Amino acid sequence: MRIAVDAMGGDKGPRATVAGAASAVIEDPQIDIQLFGPKALLEDEISRLPRPLVAAASHLHLCDAPDVIAADMRASQALRSGGRSSMARMLESVAAGDAAVGVSPGNTGALMALSRRALGMVPGVPRPAISTAIPTRDDGRCYLLDLGANVDVSAERLVDFALMGDIMARHVDGLVAPRIALLNVGVESTKGSAVVQDADAMLRQQPGLNYLGFIEGDGVFAGEADVVVCDGFVGNVLLKASEGLAKMLVRRVQATFEAHWGSRLVGLLARPALKRLKSELDPVRYNGASLLGLAGIVIKSHGSCDAQGFHYALRRASQEVRRDLPSRLHAELDHRRLARTRTR
Amino acid sequence: MRIAVDAMGGDKGPRATVAGAASAVIEDPQIDIQLFGPKALLEDEISRLPRPLVAAASHLHLCDAPDVIAADMRASQALRSGGRSSMARMLESVAAGDAAVGVSPGNTGALMALSRRALGMVPGVPRPAISTAIPTRDDGRCYLLDLGANVDVSAERLVDFALMGDIMARHVDGLVAPRIALLNVGVESTKGSAVVQDADAMLRQQPGLNYLGFIEGDGVFAGEADVVVCDGFVGNVLLKASEGLAKMLVRRVQATFEAHWGSRLVGLLARPALKRLKSELDPVRYNGASLLGLAGIVIKSHGSCDAQGFHYALRRASQEVRRDLPSRLHAELDHRRLARTRTR
Repeated sequence: MRIAVDAMGGDKGPRATVAGAASAVIEDPQIDIQLFGPKALLEDEISRLPRPLVAAASHLHLCDAPDVIAADMRASQALRSGGRSSMARMLESVAAGDAAVGVSPGNTGALMALSRRALGMVPGVPRPAISTAIPTRDDGRCYLLDLGANVDVSAERLVDFALMGDIMARHVDGLVAPRIALLNVGVESTKGSAVVQDADAMLRQQPGLNYLGFIEGDGVFAGEADVVVCDGFVGNVLLKASEGLAKMLVRRVQATFEAHWGSRLVGLLARPALKRLKSELDPVRYNGASLLGLAGIVIKSHGSCDAQGFHYALRRASQEVRRDLPSRLHAELDHRRLARTRTR
Repeated sequence: MRIAVDAMGGDKGPRATVAGAASAVIEDPQIDIQLFGPKALLEDEISRLPRPLVAAASHLHLCDAPDVIAADMRASQALRSGGRSSMARMLESVAAGDAAVGVSPGNTGALMALSRRALGMVPGVPRPAISTAIPTRDDGRCYLLDLGANVDVSAERLVDFALMGDIMARHVDGLVAPRIALLNVGVESTKGSAVVQDADAMLRQQPGLNYLGFIEGDGVFAGEADVVVCDGFVGNVLLKASEGLAKMLVRRVQATFEAHWGSRLVGLLARPALKRLKSELDPVRYNGASLLGLAGIVIKSHGSCDAQGFHYALRRASQEVRRDLPSRLHAELDHRRLARTRTR
């Protein structure tokens, strides 16, 4: 399996992406990785790989791309002038079938726009939706979508999100009948905006979908559903606020124990437990958001993640390739469309 | 100061509200409390008050109201048939000037509708906005609004929210120039829906407002602003998701320490620290949401709070009375309206 990696555009530069790629190869020697970026820079990073990762170098292939898409570049600008960027060239490799999947830690809006142009969409889906898994109370996880790609959406798009989330949870995670819920300000049928009310009515008509109805914000982390659907504005705010709150709480846990026992005892006793806790709460654990609805596979890594976080995104990428997600989306969405046409 | 309390409608029944009222009186003997609900039930609760709270009984005045607004009653139904309810009678007392403020743990939609009818609005504000304070990383707090009263809002309403939040932070909390921010999916000026873009442009034109611009979800808990403005759908989801996440994390902290040290050592060492932590993370600490824009003061308590939580809501209520919040809102919003008219 060949994975195309945009090595640039993350907050930590190519060091994190190159080391993450190397560690993914060490874990799974069946993969080969194309690294896109300014060649000299990437060569330098490979020469700096720590000793345990050096063996991966023969699986890392450098692909020169002189430009980088800046974090604040508008999507329209990226479409016009981003042709020589590491992101665009990485996507060309996926479009040409050279690589099975592309991964980037860069500018989300640009990645969406360039991916759509390079790979096209599954028929019937106008724009990709972004989805990632978040941890739930019962040690499970829940897919949330959309996470910011679509800020003003119609009820029809919310239904698309639900169907795509269902297909992903079944085929990538092996769930038999994923529980699908629609995020709202209350669970009663009278609550919410006109758009969520319409989407609710439409979702109840979908055959074979395990649709639970509305879910409130606290239900997301309670593990009440496997897929939670909302518009991109709400999903983006929910995800980022959760990251901010988790960070704050971990700091408070630390401060509370230090205040209570003094730093010495904390050093002896609490540090290992706190370290484990931090890694459990780390949003990077589930790093790797899927751009759903593309006619190919593209994974967006968190821009601020380190080598380990980038490694998780690569793992997610290879999982989606093995389960052949875009073909499943294509076939199942087509099937539903045909069934709908027939009943009309 | 007299406070009117809807003793019914919370998840824990009148026990929590009566005990909370008693404990508020013990803390501040200058207040008197009218308790609205079925008289026999309330008498029974007063007779059960624990010994340290018995002295409060002479400040608790029972006001019979036979009906209760159910948690799932629609606002329209409450308006039609809720006249003999504890919530409606509590609001009549505020409207008549008998009590200076009303507090209820009941159905939010019904409370909004009945409050608006009983008290009217500050001129120029069409519907109340709900706001509460949430804890931030630097041990500060941040007002978030709206929290669910307004799910589909215009840019003009978002500007109203910002102005009301500013007035509240200045007059109730004594901040000199509260930092106001607008919640969005990114901080760049090109990000977000048409509504937040328009609101952003309008907020930049407001004289004397310390408007920072856009803020992302993670900025809320980072303490980057004193007032964060969003529509009621987003605010409701953010608040409830945060409560759910905080609950989940406290459980994980506990589980991590138990797994690491075994339950014995936890019993000896960690329990006091965990207990303190739980209370620090408890959303009830900031219990008491303001219904802003009413021509009177009404505080919504969390429906699931206990006596201590209800006590916090009463404290919030007396604070807003002392700072005379509705008159400040009235005067300052009028002043802005006049200034706008003059410049036209």
